[in-house]
Amino acid sequence: MNDNFADRLLEAIEEKGSPVCVGIDPSYERLPDDLRSDSASPDQQLSAIRQFCQTVLEIVAGIVPVVKPQSAYFEVYRGKGVSLYYETVRLAKDMGLVVIGDTKRGDIGSTAEAYAKAHLAGPDTPDALTVNGYLGTDGIDPFCEVAARDGKGVFVLVRTSNQSASQTQDFSDAAGQKFYQHIARQTASLGDNEGLLGQRGFSSLGAVVGATYPQEAAELREIMPRQLFLVPGYGAQGAGAEDCAAAFDSNGAGAIVNASRSVIYAYQREPYGRLGWEEAIEASARDFADDIQKAVLG
Amino acid sequence: MNDNFADRLLEAIEEKGSPVCVGIDPSYERLPDDLRSDSASPDQQLSAIRQFCQTVLEIVAGIVPVVKPQSAYFEVYRGKGVSLYYETVRLAKDMGLVVIGDTKRGDIGSTAEAYAKAHLAGPDTPDALTVNGYLGTDGIDPFCEVAARDGKGVFVLVRTSNQSASQTQDFSDAAGQKFYQHIARQTASLGDNEGLLGQRGFSSLGAVVGATYPQEAAELREIMPRQLFLVPGYGAQGAGAEDCAAAFDSNGAGAIVNASRSVIYAYQREPYGRLGWEEAIEASARDFADDIQKAVLG
Repeated sequence: MNDNFADRLLEAIEEKGSPVCVGIDPSYERLPDDLRSDSASPDQQLSAIRQFCQTVLEIVAGIVPVVKPQSAYFEVYRGKGVSLYYETVRLAKDMGLVVIGDTKRGDIGSTAEAYAKAHLAGPDTPDALTVNGYLGTDGIDPFCEVAARDGKGVFVLVRTSNQSASQTQDFSDAAGQKFYQHIARQTASLGDNEGLLGQRGFSSLGAVVGATYPQEAAELREIMPRQLFLVPGYGAQGAGAEDCAAAFDSNGAGAIVNASRSVIYAYQREPYGRLGWEEAIEASARDFADDIQKAVLG
Repeated sequence: MNDNFADRLLEAIEEKGSPVCVGIDPSYERLPDDLRSDSASPDQQLSAIRQFCQTVLEIVAGIVPVVKPQSAYFEVYRGKGVSLYYETVRLAKDMGLVVIGDTKRGDIGSTAEAYAKAHLAGPDTPDALTVNGYLGTDGIDPFCEVAARDGKGVFVLVRTSNQSASQTQDFSDAAGQKFYQHIARQTASLGDNEGLLGQRGFSSLGAVVGATYPQEAAELREIMPRQLFLVPGYGAQGAGAEDCAAAFDSNGAGAIVNASRSVIYAYQREPYGRLGWEEAIEASARDFADDIQKAVLG
């Protein structure tokens, strides 16, 4: 196994043929009818979520290179839910998937070190983690240290895909530079650490760059030429494959597009609603991978 | 029990006589010698942390109104650690303490709702939570909804106390307004929701404002007259009681000063090192409470 996360991610993308990631956001209320009951106890809900996650992973492991479990949905079930989060991470890794833990943690000093130890260090945590950079480099460095040491990756939130992102991230200085561009420059600079740079020219310190703003993604690619972009917003959040293509470099590399609810709950929407839930997830995952592959690689 | 968090916090401060909070940041490596062994398994470490947290809570419950367990240190032990986090929260509440969960979570939409459900909803979660506002109001609203419904509080990270905070938070617009001031205005506006305002004129949507920048705290008090300030930075991070006093309003109200390591690990520093660890924690908690009370209330 290559010991640089960026290289490993790019290899995994080549192997599967499409730069896509499926987000694992399990809400009990949205599980298929045959896994759900109105009177389920929290333990029964968690057991259904376990079965659902395992089935989703088995389906998508042959189609996509990367999955992204979202910690929040597991944390709803407190200690037992968090244990299932780690179980899901291990299961996905055992299936050969690259795993990005979506935790968006952000703190400083020994607290950030504790988060890095909990969520990124060692073999049975995700391959990479999303982090929040509002607290400055003090909040990023402890994650980068673990990433460099253990061959892991970090994705800093730069430009998020939600509607109110512009309220904060578009705040501009006198020269017209926006706050998210400032965070992008900081991320680019931190990522040039030689312990993070891989042999393919990308850094293991990447960036979250929402697909809902394609012009901005192109500008951010200029600011961050060596960052891998994790691109949310496709599908449920309204961005199409062409919007996502702006995040890639001129060789069609350097980014990975995520879809969560539009794939794992495909059985609740057209044109997949007439299929069984497993078939719906499989069909939508294939369509998603094909859609992005065509838009990016032509 | 008053059903508004801001009112409840102010009552608790009056009852104990000092606007202070002890942070519960349990690192196994820093526990007292008689609780620690070099060969301890993770379960044994967690058991020692349980005993340490319980003792710290028993000591400080008679001295301070508020405690702030830091989730990261519990997350190091994954599912079992998270279970202990909730156990610690419940224990502190049973002792009559107001509990602020320091999680700094930040996400959007249904994910933020999941975090709010996990960490703030219902009776057996903290009374209030720290959150990160980088993603805009989409990331704050779900926490405010739970706060208004369940009588809880939210503290948005506005100005953090760490050294590199200025790298991001001092980013300025053409009029000289800084990014953290922009977040402060947004927080002030969101906090004026009538479901959050208490009878004493403060909102249950508060702000984290580091004590290491007293001039800024005074300016932020102008921008956020109805926000309760949670003030980190005293002690281990270098701020003194006079620095902290700037966060309070002209009546000596509206803020709560936190100290974590300087109290819970007081046995590792002067002038407390010659005491037993329980006596050291008690003496430093009393000195901390007195120090802040004198600086704020004269």
